[in-house]
Amino acid sequence: MSRDPAGSGRVAKAVAAESAEPGRVGLRSHGLRRAAFAQATSPRVVIEHVQPQIDGGRFPIKRTPGERVAVTADIFADGHDRIAGALRFRLVDHQWREVPLTSLGDDTWTASFTVEELGEYEYAIAAWIDRFGSWLARLAAKADAGQDVASDLAEGAEIVQQAASREYQASGVGRTEDDLRLLNVADTLRSARAQEARVAAARDPDLRRLMDARPDRATSTSTPPLRVTVDPERARYGAWYEMFPRSCTSDGRRSGTLREAEARLPDIAAMGFDVLYLAPVHPRGRTNRKGRNNTLSVAPGDPGSPWAIGSAEGGHTAVDPELGTLDDFDRFVASARHLGLEVALDIAFQASPDHPWVQEHPAWFRHRPDGSIKHAENPPKKYQDIYPFDFDTTDWRALWDALRDIFLFWTARGVRIFRVDNPHTKTFGFWEWAIAEIRHRHPDTIFLSEAFTRPKVMRYLAKAGFSQSYTYFTWRNTARELQDYLTELTRTELQEYLRPNFFANTPDILHAYLQTGGRPAFEVRLVLAATLSASYGIYSGFELCENVPIGPGSEEYLNSEKYEIRPRDWHQPGNLNELIARVNQIRRAHRALQFNGTLAFHATDNPALLWFSKTEPSHPRTVALSHRDRVFVVANTDPHGVQHGRVQVPIWELGLEPGQSYVVEDLLDGTRYAWRGDWNYVKLDPGERMAHVLLIRDW
Amino acid sequence: MSRDPAGSGRVAKAVAAESAEPGRVGLRSHGLRRAAFAQATSPRVVIEHVQPQIDGGRFPIKRTPGERVAVTADIFADGHDRIAGALRFRLVDHQWREVPLTSLGDDTWTASFTVEELGEYEYAIAAWIDRFGSWLARLAAKADAGQDVASDLAEGAEIVQQAASREYQASGVGRTEDDLRLLNVADTLRSARAQEARVAAARDPDLRRLMDARPDRATSTSTPPLRVTVDPERARYGAWYEMFPRSCTSDGRRSGTLREAEARLPDIAAMGFDVLYLAPVHPRGRTNRKGRNNTLSVAPGDPGSPWAIGSAEGGHTAVDPELGTLDDFDRFVASARHLGLEVALDIAFQASPDHPWVQEHPAWFRHRPDGSIKHAENPPKKYQDIYPFDFDTTDWRALWDALRDIFLFWTARGVRIFRVDNPHTKTFGFWEWAIAEIRHRHPDTIFLSEAFTRPKVMRYLAKAGFSQSYTYFTWRNTARELQDYLTELTRTELQEYLRPNFFANTPDILHAYLQTGGRPAFEVRLVLAATLSASYGIYSGFELCENVPIGPGSEEYLNSEKYEIRPRDWHQPGNLNELIARVNQIRRAHRALQFNGTLAFHATDNPALLWFSKTEPSHPRTVALSHRDRVFVVANTDPHGVQHGRVQVPIWELGLEPGQSYVVEDLLDGTRYAWRGDWNYVKLDPGERMAHVLLIRDW
Repeated sequence: MSRDPAGSGRVAKAVAAESAEPGRVGLRSHGLRRAAFAQATSPRVVIEHVQPQIDGGRFPIKRTPGERVAVTADIFADGHDRIAGALRFRLVDHQWREVPLTSLGDDTWTASFTVEELGEYEYAIAAWIDRFGSWLARLAAKADAGQDVASDLAEGAEIVQQAASREYQASGVGRTEDDLRLLNVADTLRSARAQEARVAAARDPDLRRLMDARPDRATSTSTPPLRVTVDPERARYGAWYEMFPRSCTSDGRRSGTLREAEARLPDIAAMGFDVLYLAPVHPRGRTNRKGRNNTLSVAPGDPGSPWAIGSAEGGHTAVDPELGTLDDFDRFVASARHLGLEVALDIAFQASPDHPWVQEHPAWFRHRPDGSIKHAENPPKKYQDIYPFDFDTTDWRALWDALRDIFLFWTARGVRIFRVDNPHTKTFGFWEWAIAEIRHRHPDTIFLSEAFTRPKVMRYLAKAGFSQSYTYFTWRNTARELQDYLTELTRTELQEYLRPNFFANTPDILHAYLQTGGRPAFEVRLVLAATLSASYGIYSGFELCENVPIGPGSEEYLNSEKYEIRPRDWHQPGNLNELIARVNQIRRAHRALQFNGTLAFHATDNPALLWFSKTEPSHPRTVALSHRDRVFVVANTDPHGVQHGRVQVPIWELGLEPGQSYVVEDLLDGTRYAWRGDWNYVKLDPGERMAHVLLIRDW
Repeated sequence: MSRDPAGSGRVAKAVAAESAEPGRVGLRSHGLRRAAFAQATSPRVVIEHVQPQIDGGRFPIKRTPGERVAVTADIFADGHDRIAGALRFRLVDHQWREVPLTSLGDDTWTASFTVEELGEYEYAIAAWIDRFGSWLARLAAKADAGQDVASDLAEGAEIVQQAASREYQASGVGRTEDDLRLLNVADTLRSARAQEARVAAARDPDLRRLMDARPDRATSTSTPPLRVTVDPERARYGAWYEMFPRSCTSDGRRSGTLREAEARLPDIAAMGFDVLYLAPVHPRGRTNRKGRNNTLSVAPGDPGSPWAIGSAEGGHTAVDPELGTLDDFDRFVASARHLGLEVALDIAFQASPDHPWVQEHPAWFRHRPDGSIKHAENPPKKYQDIYPFDFDTTDWRALWDALRDIFLFWTARGVRIFRVDNPHTKTFGFWEWAIAEIRHRHPDTIFLSEAFTRPKVMRYLAKAGFSQSYTYFTWRNTARELQDYLTELTRTELQEYLRPNFFANTPDILHAYLQTGGRPAFEVRLVLAATLSASYGIYSGFELCENVPIGPGSEEYLNSEKYEIRPRDWHQPGNLNELIARVNQIRRAHRALQFNGTLAFHATDNPALLWFSKTEPSHPRTVALSHRDRVFVVANTDPHGVQHGRVQVPIWELGLEPGQSYVVEDLLDGTRYAWRGDWNYVKLDPGERMAHVLLIRDW
């Protein structure tokens, strides 16, 4: 990504690469190449294809505390010597630790470590010729063939003696007991005793153990460190609820307040949500304010979009006076936290024409030739109530700092989750820098990327630092679409860096599936979002099965809450509160549903059924697959009709015999079914239920 | 591969990377990150996943003159602006040239260039915001929607005017006619003429052309250059014949001479071979010389292995006096070349105990504790007639230089092809360095790697610089095995750097398939080697169907030429000379067979039949698929029985209608068959023929 690949940075880079990586230089500098090998010849061991690795180490992988990083690499050397190696890892700025590599065959090696702390870890592979092991293998082969090994034993004595001195010389504290034992063995190998006895001494597993602890790593090969971002658990797993606090009022003609919104918290907590995501709470612009249903004619009292941020009352660091004060906000966050709800703020980097910065920093906006400031547009569509920032402004340093400081303003008030609006319309470099800035100070911060854009852009934002990503879930409704999409998310490199957050609806997206599928559609989409993805969310109104679009073919809500105050009766008949509470309770009780990596799809004979399971990931102390928490889900993706068919239980993974009977329990309602063998019958009637969430109980 | 990833090279590297690649720095140095953006903010365009690219640019891809490098990359920017870009390429140390990128959709872009010269090329991608194109798209959308675009036109005038000045200011030679035309357009856009007329001026394709030639690349993104090694055509395509010149004698009790071997050249040339590969021609050791059939008891007159290199008469730069003199060698090379045969030398970096270096440079060998030099071994096997070099010797610089100088000695005598013996038992770093050293001086040199070892090691040697590789072909005999193996070689990343050379036999490998399959086995293996791989070879004796192993289960020849002089009657009944000549003639006549990348397997209903085609690659001026040279081959992989069945012709690629009749001609014997539609019948009787090499004649 250098602007000029032939530029002056080239030589410095080549030299740096030279000193770090012998051999890693193009033909042009072939004269330099050997200069790197000051003492010895080039390291004999090659390490290739270290995995996981995102774009050659350009980006970190992601984990949460307690998660494992299983690393593999191709490692080999010339000739027939044995090799050994270690996975090295550390929390950045701490001591390196090491785990020995084990061979998987075909020159592939592996080891793993578990991250414990928030922040940034590094990992690397080191490998070397196993001099003792190679010698022992040769000795054994020759001795077993009845050959004379006198010379080999003398050679081994030398190797063992050197090992005894290595630690001693390195530590300077005197020989250990083990060192002395090694010197003893060296004497034995050199002694006049019978060859058989000396070979037996060489083959002593205890010697092997001592020698493995003292490898000769003088010419080991090491890879450059790769990075792991360790985010809080909530970055991986959580149920989100989105709301407009201003709608928390019984009087639709005025904005609800944060104080009033507090009253809504117990209900949301009772549904089992973990994150409460608020539409922007800042002062709203008046100029070119949008009327109801996104019209240009604004009526008195129309509140306008909360995404038209900024007025005389303040910008991104102020609270809309109609909602209350900063103190009210703090109190709201504290109340929510008390109920187990973490508040997520919406961060939308754009301004209303009335934002204080329009006057204070006109250079931060885009201008027309006549000097006026441009509103947002996606021709021929116009967004007259919004001024985008100009990330290319010559005053970009001040702008970037000011935007970062918005995050810091809210982190100082205890906010740790940010849902970022349309990050794909801002310079990518800004996000990488800004997120690193915040995480450096507050590694417990979570950033959700709302980038409903093209796949590669969505992925890039995840790589550049966002902890979670909105996805295409709302547009994946058939079983086939869901299986394909989840396979991409959980079975490719994406699972290392893109954490999906499956929102079943948003204020911008009411999918036709929900518009036409009635309550059963809402039920199944809830269960699918909550069980397919460890993070999922709904936007308020979902629980009331609100499904009226502004017009045919549109995914916009009629009377969208984006442009008006929408008080609701949260307990009106037909609500999904109980189902939601049950699903979130199951998610909390079953670790299997708190991860995505173990998602597995299973066979069914009806393509309208989606049949899958999730398993609790293995612990560092490996727990047998059949003893780990595992939840099975079968869902009817057709909200319009009864679907039935057979689903195949992977009994071979569960320790069940082909003809064995067992019981499955639907965690949603406690119903139990007697099943037998692998293929079993299910029937899902939209009038009764759209899904089973099953536990296999007795085996 | 740095020995100490936390070492002192780190800071220098980070800073170099910083200046070259904004954003490409880990969290730890986040404070530095923006320092790179001195003038402007970070480049908005992201370029990812440039292909082809081997291990992040660690190794070059390979081509021969006239071959194309088709490059793809993922390229995107924030927001809705259009982007444009160029593929940049150059012969190293020459001027960069550029080809515009075109979009393939899904944010993937492509362009290609053709390499012409031997040596090293570089290629890189540059991409930028297409400021004019983005503006024009917005203008058009707004104008088409009937919106006022006065301000947009003023903005466009500015863009056009800047472009008119860009070249002018850069060249300093005054405005061109085109510059003046652009200034005119800018005036029009700004003029008081009707909006319609001004929009029409903006949309003029001629303006687009002028503007595309003057992109604003001030903030373009560029990737670091990737490399292409351009080898001579013979690295890609050639028929090899391996021989022991000492066997060219009518008297088996003494060594034949190079003069005598010259007499054999016309026959070899008549068979259509391109490369004549000689077993080592150097003086052979006497100490621990091996007897016939690799025995330890050597009889008087036993010549020993030519791979036990070196005696009092000289080492790797001498010619065995029994073969002749260096002058005789030069004469042999010249005679061969006169007949169209390029001589390939065997380079085996090992010494007999009598090699002059054993006395001159004892430090270049491995020693026992008692100071004696170790012979080669692979316990419990011993090779007492061979001393391996110690690539880890403290005197490695002198050893490496001396080994490189062996190559240079022979290149100075005009040799340009080296078949390197067992490179996988020598330090990989040596090969990367030595091959670069030779190619730097003589880019027309070819190195064939004889590494019958594990897949990743075989591949690494190819990446490290070998132009061609021996493969597992001899062990792939069923149709399924062949299709799988060729798919790996031609449809994965391997095709960018590993050029297979399919030897049907070697002095070390007489596969059971040949031992038991009789003449039909030799026929089909010849046709398969010669048509599946653009480079292939046989070791002399193959044409006589020599197939007697030293014992059951062994792949060693009985009375192996490695340990004795083996005069033969090259025209004895049953020889394959004519078939070989025909096959090589077909290879020369059909460019389709001179490449591997276009190999395609087609459907057949008999798994004993292998049915495939090769097509001439497209030219820079693309030639329609149906007009390119294309050869079809069907082979019976069962030498023991008649196999017949139906094969599917991909008529949809050939412009043939489903029911259409056409003629296929067997290039091996000129027989023509009338075929019709896609599925057609073939019968291959080992008593008659084992394969058809078909040209579809009439359509």
